[in-house]
Amino acid sequence: MAIIDGRKIAAEIKEKVREEVEGMETKPGLATVLVGDDPASQLYVKLKGKACEEAGIKSEKYEFPGDAKEEEVIKLIRELNSNSSIHGILVQLPLPKNLNSQKIMAEIAPEKDVDGFNPVNMGRLLIGDERFVPCTPKGVIRMLEHEKVELKGKDCVIVNHSPVVGKPLAMLLLNREATVSVCHVKTKDLGKFTREAEILIVAAGVPGLIKADMVKKGVVVIDVGINKTKDGVVGDVDFEAVKEKASLITPVPGGVGPMTIAMLLENTILAARWQK
Amino acid sequence: MAIIDGRKIAAEIKEKVREEVEGMETKPGLATVLVGDDPASQLYVKLKGKACEEAGIKSEKYEFPGDAKEEEVIKLIRELNSNSSIHGILVQLPLPKNLNSQKIMAEIAPEKDVDGFNPVNMGRLLIGDERFVPCTPKGVIRMLEHEKVELKGKDCVIVNHSPVVGKPLAMLLLNREATVSVCHVKTKDLGKFTREAEILIVAAGVPGLIKADMVKKGVVVIDVGINKTKDGVVGDVDFEAVKEKASLITPVPGGVGPMTIAMLLENTILAARWQK
Repeated sequence: MAIIDGRKIAAEIKEKVREEVEGMETKPGLATVLVGDDPASQLYVKLKGKACEEAGIKSEKYEFPGDAKEEEVIKLIRELNSNSSIHGILVQLPLPKNLNSQKIMAEIAPEKDVDGFNPVNMGRLLIGDERFVPCTPKGVIRMLEHEKVELKGKDCVIVNHSPVVGKPLAMLLLNREATVSVCHVKTKDLGKFTREAEILIVAAGVPGLIKADMVKKGVVVIDVGINKTKDGVVGDVDFEAVKEKASLITPVPGGVGPMTIAMLLENTILAARWQK
Repeated sequence: MAIIDGRKIAAEIKEKVREEVEGMETKPGLATVLVGDDPASQLYVKLKGKACEEAGIKSEKYEFPGDAKEEEVIKLIRELNSNSSIHGILVQLPLPKNLNSQKIMAEIAPEKDVDGFNPVNMGRLLIGDERFVPCTPKGVIRMLEHEKVELKGKDCVIVNHSPVVGKPLAMLLLNREATVSVCHVKTKDLGKFTREAEILIVAAGVPGLIKADMVKKGVVVIDVGINKTKDGVVGDVDFEAVKEKASLITPVPGGVGPMTIAMLLENTILAARWQK
């Protein structure tokens, strides 16, 4: 069994990004948009800003109160769309319930859509034309590639069917010719699927959902869950027990989490290059 | 066992479309674009034109020789995009190899994209905002709904991972909370998946690929395959043997085929309504 060190892989990618930014005439610029005062969202935006700074990417933070109107947010996005010093726009999700996320995501110019949630970029991903790929699924694939895990023909099981993680991840795996099963809360017998997985990716938000008797020996496990419990932050996988059967496994924290921010930096560079 | 009569369901939908068109002040208009002289494509375009005519939809046929330049096709699409008497634009696939299908599909105005292949509409489908859904996957779902097959929580297996059938179908089924496995030519043990399916949808283009020992009793089978053999047109399923185990099954011909054209007519009406 080997543990995949997300922090180390992410640090390598960030260093590569930093070197690349150093060589760029115009520094890439990322605008982050935060609506409301959700502490987790505030933390994520802060971490993203810090990572940008370390990489030499200019980041601008825009904040709205929780009762901001849709029109105000859209007005800002349109201004950022036509601001040539801003190459990437990230609207931190989830947005307050009174705002229509889909409508707001669709306003971000596709070439500045570093989170990949604009339908044009989602559709391109489905078609196999991967441009801006959402950061978490992209980070998962990057980890697997880094560990030289063959994807073609592999039996992959994803536990999550959201447009943010499960569906784009399914598209990424299908684009690489894996066989893909997508499970979720309505799946009748989750274990039946997970036990057959050669690669298992879990993002259910349920601490300890995946137990040792639900996986087969040699499985590669990527745990996307981030759950705050009284024992600290844990994933969706019973790590201590499952790691005895897995050939490769990500820890939580220190697994997929750091990769997500590294992918955001990469997407911001891609955006800056495409807009040159 | 019951056979799903695609012709009958399609005829009902077409009749409903016809009645609706009758009540519309401006008749919907569909432009079909055919490049090259592939006999199958010519036949499909002809059948689509005929179906439009029967439904009272005005159809205009545009043809290019097989060596047409991309710019010429794109020029026509742009003209059709701004032609207010044309509500839907269909470019018959496959296009000759010298043309970039993705680029051409992306040129069709999303609100006229009755085939649903523009990335914006693909992305909306992934996000769960179903607007123009590709006709074949939409026809499959419509048949299942017509037969009152519950999808939520059902174990569904799709044999196809193309952007035209398998991937959009996976999104449609996930949007309805089915558990979805997507198999294809690189899948190591197809039977392992198909034997677990409660709903099996096959679009492999391999006559007789699915045999009786590859399905479980009570399965619902949708056969999207259309294969010309010396014994006539057959699907991907060994129909005579599999129908003994299936609770519901589509024949070929007379199954999904007719549904595809009915869905095109429906999408054309949707387009006309949205552009009012």
